[in-house]
Amino acid sequence: MVDIIHRIGIKAPISKVYAALSTAEGVAGWWTKETTGESKPGGTIKVIFRSPNGDEKGKMEFEPLKLNPNQEVHWRFKSGPAEWIGTDVTFKLSQDGDATLVVFGHRNWREAVEFMAHCSMKWATFLLSLKEFVETGRGKPSPDDLKIDNWN
Amino acid sequence: MVDIIHRIGIKAPISKVYAALSTAEGVAGWWTKETTGESKPGGTIKVIFRSPNGDEKGKMEFEPLKLNPNQEVHWRFKSGPAEWIGTDVTFKLSQDGDATLVVFGHRNWREAVEFMAHCSMKWATFLLSLKEFVETGRGKPSPDDLKIDNWN
Repeated sequence: MVDIIHRIGIKAPISKVYAALSTAEGVAGWWTKETTGESKPGGTIKVIFRSPNGDEKGKMEFEPLKLNPNQEVHWRFKSGPAEWIGTDVTFKLSQDGDATLVVFGHRNWREAVEFMAHCSMKWATFLLSLKEFVETGRGKPSPDDLKIDNWN
Repeated sequence: MVDIIHRIGIKAPISKVYAALSTAEGVAGWWTKETTGESKPGGTIKVIFRSPNGDEKGKMEFEPLKLNPNQEVHWRFKSGPAEWIGTDVTFKLSQDGDATLVVFGHRNWREAVEFMAHCSMKWATFLLSLKEFVETGRGKPSPDDLKIDNWN
């Protein structure tokens, strides 16, 4: 099993970062505008990604397994690209003065395939989008996300 | 041993991307302006990173172990942060129509420590800087690099 890990600091209270990760409305502000469903353990969140011209580029479903206010968010992927099924996304939050630190993980990939390298780069750009969204109110969720290579 | 991996596409000929990775002048255009030394197997490249006010934030030395024109660049770190010594950075290049794909690796970390998560995020921003540098002639090398958290 192999993991993608990233770390980012956001100049905002921890509760504001937690809200952006723990609610469908929050996730729609930085990952993909098409985020729907119930964000609670046992619930399902569905996300759809599109190219700027509206073509569907991918869709996935995850269960928010753990929602510990202002501490930790843990998602498990139920459907989507074959490589993602059964993988976990975790966000661990901590206070750092007047900023919030986020340690991100996309964990339990079966192999370090080239698609994982693409996703690692893409997650980094979405974490920059999360930072912008929380700090300024405006992120770059799909379909306005930064395109990084021929896979999107 | 654990690895950071990323993938990015650059709209430029492969020879231009290779030049940005295989020469000290090239590396100075996207990683840190203070890049000096001999870029050849057996040689040493020294890089120094500073904050915008000029304080030294870090320095490292690596040997360019492999320089395969338009295919692969491989660095081995000889000095720098303890976690980096003995680790390898690899860039594998391939043509994709009129673009160049780069598969990046920072390989052989002893443990997936939080500093590795910081470096993964930071490498992603430097790869965006490489893309900008090659595509437009202007990257964001240190000390003009994007600051991502409390570690820089």
